[in-house]
Amino acid sequence: MSGPWPDVTVARAALSRLIDPSDTVGLGLVSLIGPVEALRVARGEISGGKSLTAELGELLDIPTGRRDPLTEGLSRWAPRCSDLAPERDLATLTRLGGRLVLPESEEWPEALWDLQTAAPLCLWVRGKSAIPGRARLSAVVGSRDSTAYGSMVTTDIASGLTQRGYTVVSGGAYGIDAQAHRAALATYGAAEGPATIAVLACGVDRYYPAGNEDLLREVAERGLLVSEVPPGSSPTRWRFLQRNRLIAALSAVTVVVEARWRSGALSTAHHAAGLGRPVGAVPGMVSSVNSAGCHRLLRDGTAICVSDAADVAELAAGLGAEPQGDQGREDATPRRDHDGLTIPDLLLFDALPVRASTTVEKLSTVAGLSARDVITGLARLELSGLAARTGEGWRRTSG
Amino acid sequence: MSGPWPDVTVARAALSRLIDPSDTVGLGLVSLIGPVEALRVARGEISGGKSLTAELGELLDIPTGRRDPLTEGLSRWAPRCSDLAPERDLATLTRLGGRLVLPESEEWPEALWDLQTAAPLCLWVRGKSAIPGRARLSAVVGSRDSTAYGSMVTTDIASGLTQRGYTVVSGGAYGIDAQAHRAALATYGAAEGPATIAVLACGVDRYYPAGNEDLLREVAERGLLVSEVPPGSSPTRWRFLQRNRLIAALSAVTVVVEARWRSGALSTAHHAAGLGRPVGAVPGMVSSVNSAGCHRLLRDGTAICVSDAADVAELAAGLGAEPQGDQGREDATPRRDHDGLTIPDLLLFDALPVRASTTVEKLSTVAGLSARDVITGLARLELSGLAARTGEGWRRTSG
Repeated sequence: MSGPWPDVTVARAALSRLIDPSDTVGLGLVSLIGPVEALRVARGEISGGKSLTAELGELLDIPTGRRDPLTEGLSRWAPRCSDLAPERDLATLTRLGGRLVLPESEEWPEALWDLQTAAPLCLWVRGKSAIPGRARLSAVVGSRDSTAYGSMVTTDIASGLTQRGYTVVSGGAYGIDAQAHRAALATYGAAEGPATIAVLACGVDRYYPAGNEDLLREVAERGLLVSEVPPGSSPTRWRFLQRNRLIAALSAVTVVVEARWRSGALSTAHHAAGLGRPVGAVPGMVSSVNSAGCHRLLRDGTAICVSDAADVAELAAGLGAEPQGDQGREDATPRRDHDGLTIPDLLLFDALPVRASTTVEKLSTVAGLSARDVITGLARLELSGLAARTGEGWRRTSG
Repeated sequence: MSGPWPDVTVARAALSRLIDPSDTVGLGLVSLIGPVEALRVARGEISGGKSLTAELGELLDIPTGRRDPLTEGLSRWAPRCSDLAPERDLATLTRLGGRLVLPESEEWPEALWDLQTAAPLCLWVRGKSAIPGRARLSAVVGSRDSTAYGSMVTTDIASGLTQRGYTVVSGGAYGIDAQAHRAALATYGAAEGPATIAVLACGVDRYYPAGNEDLLREVAERGLLVSEVPPGSSPTRWRFLQRNRLIAALSAVTVVVEARWRSGALSTAHHAAGLGRPVGAVPGMVSSVNSAGCHRLLRDGTAICVSDAADVAELAAGLGAEPQGDQGREDATPRRDHDGLTIPDLLLFDALPVRASTTVEKLSTVAGLSARDVITGLARLELSGLAARTGEGWRRTSG
């Protein structure tokens, strides 16, 4: 392995396989004695001795008398020691056009230090561009099962942020995440810098979820794939949760476009709020379960209400909750159409099931529209090729 | 005129025609020398003299040297003196089944004193019930040109509040106001108390707007029509704005369901916030111009996000922004069986295969836990029904 710190690079690469994200004992060990020595201790090659145990206990604020954290850590790490092959992992990364970004290197995002003892050991980065500074990064996240409304707003916000020179950071998942990356890629036209950044819960050699493979390939090509776990790592639940903290820490602002009452996107929002970063939430209809999480964030004061990219940029710029003023607002609000749909037709489109069929009466209840509006709306959707009549009623077209 | 204070009643009835709402000079005069004397001064029958002018200047915090406020007031009131016929106005009110509620009477809403120098002179009230105390009144207001969504949410909130024993207060206008009154009337089934209260900008003998005549007749019949201006008064722009302060002052909470970026409903919200009353705003789609005013209130911190009657009742009960808890809410997103696991058990649960079985040793490697932690963790997961022992080792349960 070439590079200014070959030993450190190899050690951090190895440690990132041995030690799970936010394993504070492992991370504490590295901060106390450096990655090279920490790896030797973690592999059991050398003993830390009583003084290291004491220092670690003090660093982690562990009450004396509790079980020795280092012994516990060693038993966690031991089963993985036989699998260590950092040079192979680094070679894989190089083959993919990637690089390991270390805290010791200039590219290291300073913003990650805000994570303090939970700062990652290193970042496995795939893509050509350098990681921009926090001030230019804006996280746009949300639920996997987004609605047409959520996709529309995500497109507006991600495109608008990209046009304003922000890089959209998200998690590469289905739904809002994917739409945010797509809109950023479609809008991006700058000469340098990443088109968008996907922070993954698995290794940057994997395309997860499989349905986003083409998208993630394009992100690797024109933007960046970033992970704190080495190539080959699978996306576990724990890694998903920890990945959210990286998205929040890297970005100047985190926006949740759609989220259910319980949603992983809320964890990203809470990470951001915990780090003192501004959080935006996009409102939606109170009848939409996909907006319930956003309303929860608004109601409990975690997030500020954002309606468009200008609102998000304002939060990113640290202007807080003060509106910029009225101008443009009134012009922007007169009815924006999405794919030619009016708002009632959008409500109707959201209410249409994809697989089963439904009746006008049910659509009227779900969409909150009169039967007459449903019937005329269905006719318009059918003309646009968005709704189809079946033997039993109506459904969305498969396209 | 009969009643315990015939002179005071007639004087306040007369003053309420002479003096426009929130005319602080007229109101200050009444507070200094009482309504009977104030009417004589206002009609020019007696002079207040230099000492009254000085007292008034001090009360209203008017810098000495500025033009005498009383002289200015007299010139405002003089043109209306010839029209004064308070006995006739009171007779009209009686014929309509109404009564004049005075600050001197027991029914006077204490909440109106929060308006301080802008408290009304009296309330012209039409309807049988007494005005409930502030704790039981909840204002539901919004734009005249409501959407189907706004009507739906208004119905939900107004019905839910009525079911909870709150009386819905609104302005009797088209759109959200009318829908709030309608939903309250449709839901109300109590033996006593008003079904709903419409606070009008015109006299309680008038049905304005004309299209709401049937509705306002029913409110007069089963609820209350309230105004601070006497019968025959027309609804001027100034009276509309001032009417909003009465709605806000009377109610424990003010909810804006739909409002454009500029909307009269926002003035009600700002009055309520200025009085220290909680304000709720219902979110909607960012593409809806009819929600732009609500999002503005949310964004600038004037309002708290409310989705249903329970949220509003919580604000009314003075619980502020603290959510009551998750119960009921969670039904929308079913609780997942792994919620509540400790971090090591979550790591372990992630590592457990769904179909095949695996060994403690492999689990230890994959989860990054010591063999001991794996064994004790598996026992806990088994107890929770999340892990099952098989012939070959361990797997997740199918449930």
